[in-house]
Amino acid sequence: VSESKLWGGRFTGGLDPLMQAFNDSLSFDKRMWRQDLRGSRAYATALVGAGLLTEAEASELHRGLDLVAAEWQSGSFVPAPSDEDIHTANERRLKELVGAPAAKLHTGRSRNDQVATDIRLWLMDYLSDELLPQLRRLINTLVSRAESETGVLMPGYTHLQRAQPVRWSHWLLSYASMLRRDCQRLADCRARTAVCPLGSGALAGNPFGWTGRHALGFTSGVTWNSLDAVADRDFASEFQFAAAMIGNHLSRLAEDLILFCSKEFGFVTLSDAYSTGSSLMPQKKNADSLELIRGKTGRLCGHLVSLLMVQKSLPSAFNKDLQEDKEGLFDSADTVSAVVRIADGVVATLTVHPEACAGALSCDMLATDLAYYLVRRGVPFREAHAASGRCVALAEAKACQLHQLTFEDFRTVSEKFGEDVTQLWDFETSVEQYGAFGGTALESVRQQVAAFRRWLGDEQK
Amino acid sequence: VSESKLWGGRFTGGLDPLMQAFNDSLSFDKRMWRQDLRGSRAYATALVGAGLLTEAEASELHRGLDLVAAEWQSGSFVPAPSDEDIHTANERRLKELVGAPAAKLHTGRSRNDQVATDIRLWLMDYLSDELLPQLRRLINTLVSRAESETGVLMPGYTHLQRAQPVRWSHWLLSYASMLRRDCQRLADCRARTAVCPLGSGALAGNPFGWTGRHALGFTSGVTWNSLDAVADRDFASEFQFAAAMIGNHLSRLAEDLILFCSKEFGFVTLSDAYSTGSSLMPQKKNADSLELIRGKTGRLCGHLVSLLMVQKSLPSAFNKDLQEDKEGLFDSADTVSAVVRIADGVVATLTVHPEACAGALSCDMLATDLAYYLVRRGVPFREAHAASGRCVALAEAKACQLHQLTFEDFRTVSEKFGEDVTQLWDFETSVEQYGAFGGTALESVRQQVAAFRRWLGDEQK
Amino acid sequence: VSESKLWGGRFTGGLDPLMQAFNDSLSFDKRMWRQDLRGSRAYATALVGAGLLTEAEASELHRGLDLVAAEWQSGSFVPAPSDEDIHTANERRLKELVGAPAAKLHTGRSRNDQVATDIRLWLMDYLSDELLPQLRRLINTLVSRAESETGVLMPGYTHLQRAQPVRWSHWLLSYASMLRRDCQRLADCRARTAVCPLGSGALAGNPFGWTGRHALGFTSGVTWNSLDAVADRDFASEFQFAAAMIGNHLSRLAEDLILFCSKEFGFVTLSDAYSTGSSLMPQKKNADSLELIRGKTGRLCGHLVSLLMVQKSLPSAFNKDLQEDKEGLFDSADTVSAVVRIADGVVATLTVHPEACAGALSCDMLATDLAYYLVRRGVPFREAHAASGRCVALAEAKACQLHQLTFEDFRTVSEKFGEDVTQLWDFETSVEQYGAFGGTALESVRQQVAAFRRWLGDEQK
Amino acid sequence: VSESKLWGGRFTGGLDPLMQAFNDSLSFDKRMWRQDLRGSRAYATALVGAGLLTEAEASELHRGLDLVAAEWQSGSFVPAPSDEDIHTANERRLKELVGAPAAKLHTGRSRNDQVATDIRLWLMDYLSDELLPQLRRLINTLVSRAESETGVLMPGYTHLQRAQPVRWSHWLLSYASMLRRDCQRLADCRARTAVCPLGSGALAGNPFGWTGRHALGFTSGVTWNSLDAVADRDFASEFQFAAAMIGNHLSRLAEDLILFCSKEFGFVTLSDAYSTGSSLMPQKKNADSLELIRGKTGRLCGHLVSLLMVQKSLPSAFNKDLQEDKEGLFDSADTVSAVVRIADGVVATLTVHPEACAGALSCDMLATDLAYYLVRRGVPFREAHAASGRCVALAEAKACQLHQLTFEDFRTVSEKFGEDVTQLWDFETSVEQYGAFGGTALESVRQQVAAFRRWLGDEQK
Repeated sequence: VSESKLWGGRFTGGLDPLMQAFNDSLSFDKRMWRQDLRGSRAYATALVGAGLLTEAEASELHRGLDLVAAEWQSGSFVPAPSDEDIHTANERRLKELVGAPAAKLHTGRSRNDQVATDIRLWLMDYLSDELLPQLRRLINTLVSRAESETGVLMPGYTHLQRAQPVRWSHWLLSYASMLRRDCQRLADCRARTAVCPLGSGALAGNPFGWTGRHALGFTSGVTWNSLDAVADRDFASEFQFAAAMIGNHLSRLAEDLILFCSKEFGFVTLSDAYSTGSSLMPQKKNADSLELIRGKTGRLCGHLVSLLMVQKSLPSAFNKDLQEDKEGLFDSADTVSAVVRIADGVVATLTVHPEACAGALSCDMLATDLAYYLVRRGVPFREAHAASGRCVALAEAKACQLHQLTFEDFRTVSEKFGEDVTQLWDFETSVEQYGAFGGTALESVRQQVAAFRRWLGDEQK
Repeated sequence: VSESKLWGGRFTGGLDPLMQAFNDSLSFDKRMWRQDLRGSRAYATALVGAGLLTEAEASELHRGLDLVAAEWQSGSFVPAPSDEDIHTANERRLKELVGAPAAKLHTGRSRNDQVATDIRLWLMDYLSDELLPQLRRLINTLVSRAESETGVLMPGYTHLQRAQPVRWSHWLLSYASMLRRDCQRLADCRARTAVCPLGSGALAGNPFGWTGRHALGFTSGVTWNSLDAVADRDFASEFQFAAAMIGNHLSRLAEDLILFCSKEFGFVTLSDAYSTGSSLMPQKKNADSLELIRGKTGRLCGHLVSLLMVQKSLPSAFNKDLQEDKEGLFDSADTVSAVVRIADGVVATLTVHPEACAGALSCDMLATDLAYYLVRRGVPFREAHAASGRCVALAEAKACQLHQLTFEDFRTVSEKFGEDVTQLWDFETSVEQYGAFGGTALESVRQQVAAFRRWLGDEQK
Repeated sequence: VSESKLWGGRFTGGLDPLMQAFNDSLSFDKRMWRQDLRGSRAYATALVGAGLLTEAEASELHRGLDLVAAEWQSGSFVPAPSDEDIHTANERRLKELVGAPAAKLHTGRSRNDQVATDIRLWLMDYLSDELLPQLRRLINTLVSRAESETGVLMPGYTHLQRAQPVRWSHWLLSYASMLRRDCQRLADCRARTAVCPLGSGALAGNPFGWTGRHALGFTSGVTWNSLDAVADRDFASEFQFAAAMIGNHLSRLAEDLILFCSKEFGFVTLSDAYSTGSSLMPQKKNADSLELIRGKTGRLCGHLVSLLMVQKSLPSAFNKDLQEDKEGLFDSADTVSAVVRIADGVVATLTVHPEACAGALSCDMLATDLAYYLVRRGVPFREAHAASGRCVALAEAKACQLHQLTFEDFRTVSEKFGEDVTQLWDFETSVEQYGAFGGTALESVRQQVAAFRRWLGDEQK
Repeated sequence: VSESKLWGGRFTGGLDPLMQAFNDSLSFDKRMWRQDLRGSRAYATALVGAGLLTEAEASELHRGLDLVAAEWQSGSFVPAPSDEDIHTANERRLKELVGAPAAKLHTGRSRNDQVATDIRLWLMDYLSDELLPQLRRLINTLVSRAESETGVLMPGYTHLQRAQPVRWSHWLLSYASMLRRDCQRLADCRARTAVCPLGSGALAGNPFGWTGRHALGFTSGVTWNSLDAVADRDFASEFQFAAAMIGNHLSRLAEDLILFCSKEFGFVTLSDAYSTGSSLMPQKKNADSLELIRGKTGRLCGHLVSLLMVQKSLPSAFNKDLQEDKEGLFDSADTVSAVVRIADGVVATLTVHPEACAGALSCDMLATDLAYYLVRRGVPFREAHAASGRCVALAEAKACQLHQLTFEDFRTVSEKFGEDVTQLWDFETSVEQYGAFGGTALESVRQQVAAFRRWLGDEQK
C-alpha cells in the first residue's frame, strides 16, 4: 500500500486497513479542493522563477490543474484508494493528466505548509463570501424591522422581571449591536488568517527562494517563523471562538423569542415556515427553529473546546493531532451559517403583537420614574428610591396598582409629592426620557438605526 | 409540506426549505432504525393488550415492521422528502406496506418517549456489542504482553525525569488498570441507560396502560416520572464523559509511546502498519496512529461539553435543543471505538527493545535505594534522604556516576555506610523490593496479571 | 531555601520567590489537614509492623499527630515559609513537636501516594458527610411538597408551549427523579474513590510491605498498579462530572422557577429570603438565588473541562500538572453544596398559586384527549390526530376556544363525534388518564412519592 | 437586613444567611475598588452638568471618594455586613464620610451599568499595565537569547521524530512568534473593551443626559444600545479566550522544554530557581515550573468554558448569572500573568548545551537534502524523494548511517548521484539553505530578530 503514498520509499509493510481509514482525511478535506489547486497554481509559477520548472512545464501544470478543478466542479473526480488527503489526491490526478511535470510540483513544499495554506485560504473565502454577508443580512433585517416598528412599546426585563418600558425596536437593535461585534471579531480573525505560511516547508523553510506568496491574496503578509507556521492553528481557534460567540448571542435571541411566543407572553407569533408541530398533541405549534438555534450553541462551544484541547501541550512544529482541526472547523462553519440564516428568516417573518406588548406594561414599571419625580423636586435619589419602594409596598398592601394610589396615599409616604404625581403614568413619556445615545427614546432609536445603516454601508464597500 | 408531516393538521403555511434541512434528523438518526422498529414491535404487542389493536392488526404490523427492517438491512430503504426523522420514516413506510393498521401504531405514544427509547436501546446495544468487548480486547492485549515480557526493565519516570527502575510489564499494566475503570464506568452507565421511558408519552404519561416495557431488555426497570423521562439525557452525558475519560487514558498511552519511539528514547519501534511517512522528508517514520489517538481526546471532550451546554437551563420536559444529543453521541461512539481498536493494534504489533530500555537505567535512579540502605541501618528516613542527596551532589561534583563513588566517598557523607554499599547497584534487585500488591516486583506483576485475567473472565461471562 | 524543603539535599540555588508562590499549594491543600494526619497515623502504625518504628516511637508520633490536629482545629497552626504543602507542613510541625521519630515517618512513602490518599479520603468524607445528605434533604423537600400539594393542576410544557395538564406535584417529582440519579452517580463515584493508593510510593511501590491500608476506610480495596495509582485522578474527574450534572439539573429547576415567578406566568412567589431588589428600580423583586444557581452550572462545567484538559496526554505516572486537581475540586464541592442547599431553601419556602396555575390551563391542551376520544370510537390514531388538528384550526378560524365549538362544528370535522364531545373539557379527568407508573394521575403521583420515600429510607440506613 | 441594602424599600422579610453569602460579591469584586471610585468621580462631575448636584456637593463627593480610596489603599477599609458588593460598600462608606450628598450620587445610575463600567476599566488597566508588558518582556527574553545563541544547531522535530536541523534561535523565535499574535489579540480585545457602558442605567438608558463618558479613558467610544450594554460580557469572554490561547502556547513551550531537559534529550538544564525535587527520591530534579505552566492551560480553558456557558441562552438584559463573570476573570488574569512571568524566568535562566544539541543531529535528517541534490541534477522531486527513501532503507539494511553509504551504494539507487554526494553531510550547510524570510538560515534568523525588535519598539511607544 505505502508504495503509492507520497511518502512510501522507506516503508516495507502495508498499513492496517483500519489505520488507513483512521488516518485518511480526504473524506473531509476534499472540501478545500479549490484552495489546494489555487495554491499549487501559484507554487508552480514560483518554481519557474526559481529555475526548477520551465515555462512549458508550468503551463502543462496549469492546464492539468484546471482539468482537475473541472472534475471536482462537475462531481466527476474519482478518488483512488491511495488518496490519503486532498493534496495526495490532486497530485495523483494531476500526474495522470499531465505526466512528468507533476512529479516536480512538490519540490521544496511539504504537506505541512500546503495544508496550512489551504485551510487559511478556505477560511478567508468562507468569511468573505459566506458568513460575513450572512451576518450583515441578519443585522440589516433587525435594523429594518427596528426602523419600521418604532411605535411598539414593550416591557424591558431584567432578571426576567418587568423592569422599565422600552421600544420593541430597541430590543431588536440590542441584537444588531451584539452581531456587529461579531463581525468585528471575524474581521480581526480574517486579518490574522490572511498570512501566508507557504514556503515554510516541513518546518525549516524553503530552500528555493519561494516568492509567490503575494499571488494568493494573503493581505497580511507572510509568516515570520517556519517552525511556528506549520503548526499554527490560532486562526482556526479564533474562528471557533468567534463562532461560539455568535452562537451565544443567537441563543439569547432564541431564548427571548421562545419566551415571547409562549402563551404566557404572547408578544410575537412565529411564521409557520419556522414552526413545527407534535406527533401526539394536535394543538401544538413549536418554535423548533429557535430551539435548534439555542441548542447549536453547545455544538459550537464544543468544537472550540476540542480544538483548544488538541493543541494543548503539543510538541514543537507539526504533529498529526492537528488533522483534528478541520472537521470541527467545517462543521462550525456550516452550523453557524445555518444558525444565522435561520435567525434571519425567523426575525424577518415573525409577527409582533403591539397590543399584547402594551398590555404587559404595568405601572409598577414606572416606580423608577416615581423616584425621579422626587429627585426633580430635590429629594436625594437614595431617599427617593426608598420612598418609591414604600409606595410600591403600599399599593401591594391595598391590593391595587401603583397608579391607583390616591394623592393622599402618596402624601403618607412623602410630602414632596405634588398633585401632578397622578399624571405620571404614561409609558410613552417614560420611554422618551432616555434620549441619550444608546437609550430607548424614539430619537435615540433613530440615531442607532442611522448608525447601523452607516456601518453596514461602510462594511459593504 | 406540513400535510405529510405527522403533525400537520393545524398548519397552513409550508416550511422554509432551509428550515426543513435544519430541522430534519433522518440523515443521522436513521442509525437507530433497528431500535426504532424493535420499540414499535413491542408497542404494537402492548396495544393488543390494551384492546386498541386486534391480534390480526398486530400481526400485520409485525409483518410490516419486518419488511421495513429488511429494507434498511439491504440498503434499499428509500427516504421520502417528508421523512423528518427515523420515526416518521418508519411509520410512513409501514403505512405504505401494510396500510390501515399503521395509523393505529402511534396511539398514546409520542416521538418524545419514542426517541428516548431508541437512543437508550442503541446505546445499550453499542456498549454491549462493541465498545466493552473492544476495551476488554485491548486490556487482554496489554495483559498478554505484560505476561510474556516480564523480564524487560526500563526507567520509570515521574515529571519525565528518570525516577526508579520498573518492569515494562508494570508500565503495560498501568494502562490496563485505567481501562478497567473505564469498563466499570461504562457498566454503571449502561445500567442507568437500561431504564424504560416508553409510556411517558409527550410528557404526561400513557393513558392506555402500556405494559410492554419489559420486552425490550430494559434491565433496570422503568422511569419514575414521565416529565423527567422525555427530557432525560443523563445516560448520554454519562457516556460522553466515560468516552472522554477513555480518550484521556489513551492520550497518555499515546504520549508515552510517542516518546518511547522517538530517537532519543528508542525503547520501542512501531510496526509499519501503524506508521506513516513524510511527503518531503524521505527518512521520516511517524507515529501518526498515536498522534491521532492523542488528538481525538479533544474531540471526545468537545462532545461532552456540547451536550452539557445543550442541557443547561432548558425549561422542563422536551425541547428541540435535545435533538443535538445524537450526532455527538454517534461520533463519540465511532471515535472511541476506533481509538480503542487502533491502540489495540499498535500495542499488539510494536517491538520493545530490552537493551535500549536497560541502557537507559542509570545508577542515580537507585538514590532512593541508597537512602533505604541507610534506613535499614537505623538512620531515620529524612536524614537518609538528605545523605543520599549529598551523595548525588558529590557524584555530580566529581562528574561521575553514583556507583562510581568509592567507599571512602560515601563515608564522607555518612559513617553509617558500610563497604557493601558498593554492591547496591543492581537494578533487578531494586525492582524486586516492590513486592506488595500493585508494585513492580516480578511476583507482584504476576499477581496483577492473574487479577486482570480473573476479572476479564468474570466480565465475559 | 531548598535546604528546608523535603527534597533539598541535591540543590544548591534557591527558588525564585515568584516560583515559590507558583509552586506552593498549602494555601489550598491545607483543607485536607485532617485526612493527611489520619493517613500518617495509619502509616505510623504500619511502620511498626514493618519493624521500622518501635511501639514507643509510634506512640510519640500519634501523640504528635494529635497535637498538630488540635492546632489546625483551633486555628492556631502557624505555617512556615518552607511549608510547600500540607504534607510538608504537617511533617515539619510534627518534628518540632516530637523530634526524632518524625524523621522516620516518611519511610517508603512519597508525597505522590500521600496526596492521592489524602484527596480520596477528603472526597469520601465530603460525599458521605455533606453532599449526599444535602441532596437527600432537597429530594425530601421536593417529595414532601409533592405529597401535600397534589391537588394543584398546572400546564405541562414542551417547547415552552402549553402541552397537557399535569400535577404541580408531578413537576416537583421530576426534579426529585433527576437528583436521585445524581445520588446514584455519586455513590458509584464514591465507591471508585474508596480504593487505597497508599503504598504506591513515588511510582514503583512500597518496599517495606505496607499493610495498613484497610485501617483508613477504603472500602473498595487497594489500587492494582502503583504507576497508575500515583497519577490516577479518575475519581476526581468523575466527581467533577457528577457535580456538573447536578448543576445542569438545578439550572433547569432554576429556569422553570424563574419563568414561574415572572409576572407573565405568576405560578409561584419566592420568599423574600431568596430574593433581592434593584438599586435603581424600587418595584423589582428578583430571583437572584435561582439565577445564581443557573449561572453556577457554568462554573461546575468549567472545572470539569479544566481537569480533563490537565490530564490530557500527560506522560506516565506523576507530573506536577496534577496539582491543578485540587482548587477546582474544592471549589466545585463548595459550589455544588451551596447550590443544593439554596435550591432546598427556595423550594421549601416558595408559595405556589393554585388559581394562577389553573388559570393557565386552556382547552386546546386537551386536543390530544379529543383525538383519544375518536380513538376510543375506533378511529385510527393518525386520523384522529388530524381530525383534532382540524378542530383546533376551526376554533382559531372562529376565534374561539376549542371547548366553545358546538357539536355541529365538531361534526363538520368528523362524524365520529358524538354529543358527549362537549363534556370532554375537564382538566382533572384528563390528568387522571395517566395512571401508569410515572404518569401524572393522582394515584401515580402517590406511588412516586412512596417510591421516593422508600428509596430515601434505604439510603439513610 | 434588607433595609440597609440599596434596594430594601419594598422588602419585608430578611435574607437567609446562606443566601446572603451566596449572593454577596464583595469578597471578590472589591478588587475593582479603584475603578469603582474612578467611575463615581466622573459620574459626580456629570451630575453637576445635569443640574442634579451643586459644585459644592460634587466637591464634597470627590473629597469623600478620595478618603474611601485612601482606606482601600492602606488596607483600613472595614466592610459592613450589608455591603453586598463593591458598589454598595463604597457608597455606604461615602455616606458615612460625607453624609447627605452621597445619597444623590446614584441618580440615574444602576449597578448594572456601574459594574459593566468597573469591569471594563479593570480589564483595560490590567492589560495595559500588567499582561501586555509581561508578554513583551517574555518576547524580549526569547529574542535576546535567539540573538546571542544563533550558533547552536539542534534537531527540528515533527511528530517528535527528528526532521531537519534547525537553529536553537529559530526554535526560540517560534514562541516569540506565537506570543506576538497573543499581544495582537489582546490589543483587539482591549479596544473592544474600551467602550463606555455608563449611562445605560438598569437597561433603558440615562434620563439626565449623562455626558461624562469620555473622562474615563474609554478610547473606543460609547455603547450603542443600553439593553445590550448592561449584559454584554463579550470583552471578558474575548479575554478568557486570549488567555486560553496564551496558556496553550506556553503549554507547548513547556512540553518542549520538559522534553529537552529530560535525560534522554539533555539539550537544556533548568536553573535550580525553577526546579524542585522529590521527598522520596534524592536524585530527582523536576521541572515543576514547566509542568505547572502546562497544567494551568486547563484552568484557563475551563474559565473560558464557564463564561461561555453562563451566557448561553440568558434572557435579554441583565441577569444575576452574570455575577459569575468576575471570579473567573480575576483568576485567569492572575494565572496567565504568573504563567508568563514564570516562563520568562525559566527561559532567561536555563542553560542550553550546544554539544548535546549537535550530538542529536544525525545524517538521516539530511535525507531531504539528498533528494534536493537529485532535484538540482534534474530529477523530478517525486522521484528524488523516492530515491532518497531507498537510500535510507539501504542504510538501515546495512545497519549504517546514511553518510556511511559509499558512492557505489548511492549509484545502486540512482545513477544521477555524483561523487560529491559524499560531501553532502554538513548540518550547517543544510541549515543555510533556508534563507527565505521565516526560515532557519542565519540571515533569516537575524531578520526575524530585527523584525521582533522593531515590533517591540513600536509597541512600547
